[in-house]
Amino acid sequence: MKSLNVELGERSYPIYIGADLLANPGLLRRHIPGNSAVVVTNTTVGPLYRHTLNTALDGLKTETVILPDGEQYKNMAVLNQIFDALVEGRFDRNTTLIALGGGVIGDITGFAAACYQRGVHFIQVPTTLLAQVDSSVGGKTGVNHPGAKNMIGAFYQPRCVLADTSTLSTLPDRELSAGLAEVIKYGLLWDREFLDWIDAHLNALLNRDNAALTEAILRSCAIKAEIVRQDEREGGLRALLNLGHTFGHAIEAGLGYGQWLHGEAVGAGMCMAADLSHRLGWLSQSDRDRVIDLIARARLPIGLPPTLDGRTLRQRMSADKKVINGTLRLVLMRELGSAVLVDNVPEELINETIQFYTEVHPRHEQQP
Amino acid sequence: MKSLNVELGERSYPIYIGADLLANPGLLRRHIPGNSAVVVTNTTVGPLYRHTLNTALDGLKTETVILPDGEQYKNMAVLNQIFDALVEGRFDRNTTLIALGGGVIGDITGFAAACYQRGVHFIQVPTTLLAQVDSSVGGKTGVNHPGAKNMIGAFYQPRCVLADTSTLSTLPDRELSAGLAEVIKYGLLWDREFLDWIDAHLNALLNRDNAALTEAILRSCAIKAEIVRQDEREGGLRALLNLGHTFGHAIEAGLGYGQWLHGEAVGAGMCMAADLSHRLGWLSQSDRDRVIDLIARARLPIGLPPTLDGRTLRQRMSADKKVINGTLRLVLMRELGSAVLVDNVPEELINETIQFYTEVHPRHEQQP
Repeated sequence: MKSLNVELGERSYPIYIGADLLANPGLLRRHIPGNSAVVVTNTTVGPLYRHTLNTALDGLKTETVILPDGEQYKNMAVLNQIFDALVEGRFDRNTTLIALGGGVIGDITGFAAACYQRGVHFIQVPTTLLAQVDSSVGGKTGVNHPGAKNMIGAFYQPRCVLADTSTLSTLPDRELSAGLAEVIKYGLLWDREFLDWIDAHLNALLNRDNAALTEAILRSCAIKAEIVRQDEREGGLRALLNLGHTFGHAIEAGLGYGQWLHGEAVGAGMCMAADLSHRLGWLSQSDRDRVIDLIARARLPIGLPPTLDGRTLRQRMSADKKVINGTLRLVLMRELGSAVLVDNVPEELINETIQFYTEVHPRHEQQP
Repeated sequence: MKSLNVELGERSYPIYIGADLLANPGLLRRHIPGNSAVVVTNTTVGPLYRHTLNTALDGLKTETVILPDGEQYKNMAVLNQIFDALVEGRFDRNTTLIALGGGVIGDITGFAAACYQRGVHFIQVPTTLLAQVDSSVGGKTGVNHPGAKNMIGAFYQPRCVLADTSTLSTLPDRELSAGLAEVIKYGLLWDREFLDWIDAHLNALLNRDNAALTEAILRSCAIKAEIVRQDEREGGLRALLNLGHTFGHAIEAGLGYGQWLHGEAVGAGMCMAADLSHRLGWLSQSDRDRVIDLIARARLPIGLPPTLDGRTLRQRMSADKKVINGTLRLVLMRELGSAVLVDNVPEELINETIQFYTEVHPRHEQQP
C-alpha cells in the first residue's frame, strides 16, 4: 500500500492506494468517528463490493443507498433520494457517508455529505480509475443542472480516500481508457517527465498491470494534491486541472449527459486544447500530433461526435462555469507539461479548432 | 446608522443597522464585486422594496427571482427555481445573490449562493425583525426536508448584512412578535442585563420605536456575532443559540410548517425550556414565571397548540438535528442570562414539562 497526504490544514486527509484495501477493515474504521455510516453506491458497483465494505463496518448502524448507474442520474432528484434515506433512517450529524463507486457516486455523495445537517463526515472509496486519479481528490462535489454540468455543488473534503486498485479488475475497458485521459492530463498540464513515463507505460496501464496502475494513480494524485493544496477553492492555479474540460463539458452537454464518458470527452477536449495551443504558436505541430497520438493509443476519441455541430459546441462552451464576467477562459498548453489559463483567445482560432475537429480531422469517425 | 463586524477571519463581514439603508446605493454597491446581481425575494416583500433595491443596482446585469411566501416553500423544489433562473440567465461565478426578505428567503438564497457553481457572493437584506436579529447573521443556510426542518444546508457567510429598520414598518404585528422571541432569547441565554433592558423597553419595541428597535437589533447581533466568532460551525457554544428550538422545531414540524411562525414556536419552546430548567432545580418558580410572562407580554404563545399531542411532540424532538448518537441534547438555563447544553435530561422531567404545557398550563389556549 502506498499513501500520500492532501495538505489542507485542519481539512488535510490521506489517500491510500493499493490492492485489497477494502478487505482491510482497520484502515476504514480509523476514519469513522461516530457509530453510524451510510454507504452510497450504484447498481453496478454495489453488488460487487458492498458486502466486503459492510464487513468492515460491522458493529456500526449502517444503511446502503443504491442509486442507478450513470452521469444522467447525477441530479437533484437522485440527491434527494440520499437525503430521504438519511432522514428516514434518522442518521445524525456525526454519521459518515461512504461513496463506493465512480466519479458520479463520489460527487453526489460528497455533496450530500456537505449538505446533510450542514455537513457530516465523508469517505471516498473510488472504484474507477478516473475517480481514483481525479474526482475523489480535492473536494469538488456536486450534481448537474439540466442546463449545465456540475452547476450545483460544494467544496467539501473527505476524511480519507481509499483507492483500492483491486476494484479496477472489474472496470470495463472503456472506463479504464476514460481514467487514462485524466492521467494523461496531469502529464500534459504539470509534468513532462510523467508524460514521458505514461507514454512508455501505456501498454502496461491498458493491460491493468497493478504496479503501473498504482504508480500512475500515486503520481496523478500527488500532482492534484499539490495543486489543490495551493488553491483549494479554485482561485486560479486549480483551474489548470480543467485542461480539456471546457471543450469536454461542451461535448458532454451537447450530446446529452451519459452518451460519452466524462474521460472520453476530456480526451477529445485535450486534443482540441492541444490544437488551439498549436494555433496560438505555443505547441509545435509535432507536439500537437503527439498529444493526439497518445490519446488515440489510450483508446479515447480524438475528434468530435458526428452528431454534434460546431455551433452548438461553441454555444455550450459559453455556458461553462469557467466563463467569468462574460469572458471565456480556457486552459491551454504553453508547452507539453505546462498549462496556462488564457482569456480572450481570438474567436477565429477557436472556430478553426472546432472546424478542424468537426470537418477536417481524418480520424473524427473514431467514436467510443 | 450603526454597524458591527462579525469576526471570522477572511470570512468577516459587517452588519449595518438603521433606517433607510436600502435607499443608500453606495452601501450595497461597495459589497458587490462583479458586474451582475440576482435579487431573490417573495411575493409579499418584493412589491414593497425591490424597486428601491433595483435602483441601487443600476448599471449591473440583474434579475429578480420572486418566490412564494412562507416556510412551506423553503424546500428543494423552490431552491431549484433559483438555480433554474441562474442557469438560464447565465449568471457566472462572480455574481452576487441578494436575499431580500425574511428568514426563509435568507436561508434559501444563502444556500443557493453556497451551491451555485460551488459558491457565489451573497448579501443579506433582512426585512423582518426575526431575520435581522437572527437568521441573517452567522451563515446558517438551508432548506427543510419533508421529514425535518433545516436538514439540508450549508454554513455560508454573506459579504454583508443590511438591516434596514424602515422595512419593519410594513411588518405584520404577528411577525414583529415572532422577532421579539429571538431578541428575548439572547437575553435569556447570554445577557441578564439585556433581558432587563428588554423587559423595560417591551412596549417601545411593540410600538416600533426606531431607536428601541435599532438598539435591540444591535445588541442581539452583537451577542450572536460573538458566539458565532467563537464557534462558527456549531462545535459547542453555538448550540446555545438553539434555546427553545428543540421544542420549537418539534412544534413546527408537528403542526406542519407554515402554521405557527418560527418565532412563535421558539417563544413557546423557551417557556418549556424555562419550565424544564425549573424542574431541574436551576430556575426558581418566579424566574420561570417571569420568562412566561415576558413571552406572553410580547404577544407570543406560551403553551402548546391544542391540536398537537404530547407524544407526537416528543417523537418530533428525537428527529431533531441536535440528537447526537441517539442522545437528545437540550439547551436549558442554569439561571436567567446563562444557557447550558444538557445531555441526558431525565425522560420523566421532559414528559412533565410537555404535560404541563399540554394539559395543566392555564394559558395554553392563547394561540397566535
